[in-house]
Amino acid sequence: MQIPDPQKLSLNTATVRQQWDLRQIIEGCARHDIRGISPWRDQVAALGLKETARLLTLHQLSVSGYCRGGMFPAATAAQRHANLTDNYRAVDEALALNAACLVLVVGGLPSGSRDLAGARQQVHDGLNALLEYARPRGMPLAIEPLHPMYAADRACINSLKQANDLIDLLGEEGLGIAVDLYHTWWDADFHHEIRRAGLKRLLAFHICDWLNPTQDLLEDRGMMGDGVIDIRGFRQAVEALGYQGFHEVEIFSRLNWWSKDPDEVLSICKLRHQQHG
Amino acid sequence: MQIPDPQKLSLNTATVRQQWDLRQIIEGCARHDIRGISPWRDQVAALGLKETARLLTLHQLSVSGYCRGGMFPAATAAQRHANLTDNYRAVDEALALNAACLVLVVGGLPSGSRDLAGARQQVHDGLNALLEYARPRGMPLAIEPLHPMYAADRACINSLKQANDLIDLLGEEGLGIAVDLYHTWWDADFHHEIRRAGLKRLLAFHICDWLNPTQDLLEDRGMMGDGVIDIRGFRQAVEALGYQGFHEVEIFSRLNWWSKDPDEVLSICKLRHQQHG
Repeated sequence: MQIPDPQKLSLNTATVRQQWDLRQIIEGCARHDIRGISPWRDQVAALGLKETARLLTLHQLSVSGYCRGGMFPAATAAQRHANLTDNYRAVDEALALNAACLVLVVGGLPSGSRDLAGARQQVHDGLNALLEYARPRGMPLAIEPLHPMYAADRACINSLKQANDLIDLLGEEGLGIAVDLYHTWWDADFHHEIRRAGLKRLLAFHICDWLNPTQDLLEDRGMMGDGVIDIRGFRQAVEALGYQGFHEVEIFSRLNWWSKDPDEVLSICKLRHQQHG
Repeated sequence: MQIPDPQKLSLNTATVRQQWDLRQIIEGCARHDIRGISPWRDQVAALGLKETARLLTLHQLSVSGYCRGGMFPAATAAQRHANLTDNYRAVDEALALNAACLVLVVGGLPSGSRDLAGARQQVHDGLNALLEYARPRGMPLAIEPLHPMYAADRACINSLKQANDLIDLLGEEGLGIAVDLYHTWWDADFHHEIRRAGLKRLLAFHICDWLNPTQDLLEDRGMMGDGVIDIRGFRQAVEALGYQGFHEVEIFSRLNWWSKDPDEVLSICKLRHQQHG
């Protein structure tokens, strides 16, 4: 089937976070019949974990992923320990919200460091420790490879291959990948690596578009259809592997969508999901 | 040896192109005892090919690479043919300047296209045609993998692996790689792929730094030492493979270096090359 199942659309709350608080976003999703949501920790903290869980249940919204854990590398052991403790709390929160997975943005170089291989080793070690906590509690961890332009400041895992290599090392029980097309569409090994991952590792699928030109490294993502990513082709490729999860829309857009009427943004998300997702 | 040979420093003329014309840049290199240069085609056209060659000989400057050929993909066969004809001229000019190689920025998606695999096939085909022209004339072609953030608009070859794969297909006679750290420092397979390339394919080595944060996708490159790239480590890795060519500094910097006194820029290039190169 060419057209995606509209019930598979999920809204990452970053998409309208400048206009609405989390309560408004949840109610907006319900009003627009968007069945999935992916909230951020700071928004959940502001609304309260219990109240968030209550509203999600009330509106029968599924959490396609919880944003986010990770940020493992740090300059000191004390900071790494603090990061890990914070990640344990993120797992607890994800469990309370019945999230499909905890999404991990793994972190970049510690301040002042040029040791990328060392940062990657710290990600391995941090992930290994977090798995000991998450596995017995049954919360899957989803490594999100980020675009190489974020290698220094956000995530030093920058390809599906790296994520698969990490999972080979750490074991795939409760550990998988959040495939975000914004971060991976350029990768000549995309199709090879999602086949290598296989259904078991495909924990989340994020969509938006790459604008050409892109004005800002962080906050100029495009609505589906406005850029150059063959979103439909990639979506069909993951579904051909058996993926049946949500298609989560995550658009950071200081230059455009964050200044629009959020009801309009949600309507357009739904329309573009059908046209291009 | 830790410290690089100062005679290996080469200046890509983009580094001071906002302040000086090509004649001034050539004379500046001579004045600062910089022995290598990599001029751009538009600058050579403005100064004249013969006059450029005369000045380079007069000042005993070596051309570490000629910028640039490539840009193969296009929406129509007529445009592809025009691009190829222009690439033939670039080969002729590179020969007239006794360049070590013609650097290729291979091009991105044709206007309106989302077919990245198709663009990559067009690069393969264009390169194959250009090799028929360049090989008998003895001008090596250097594929420059560009950072994935340029996959849409500048180059759909975004990793050393892709470049090596292309060379495996097309043959390594007169075909190699321009390794630019700005584009490749994030790549977890960097060391594996330069070993796979081997000395024969290492035609050029470009340095600058990745600033954290980076303000602009194109024109916010850093001077060596101001960013997060372990330039010395990478330089030693290519030299361990036997590379004895230039270390070419190429800094696009609308936000900083393009507004400084160009004599100061060249002095700092020399100093930072010794400190961090």
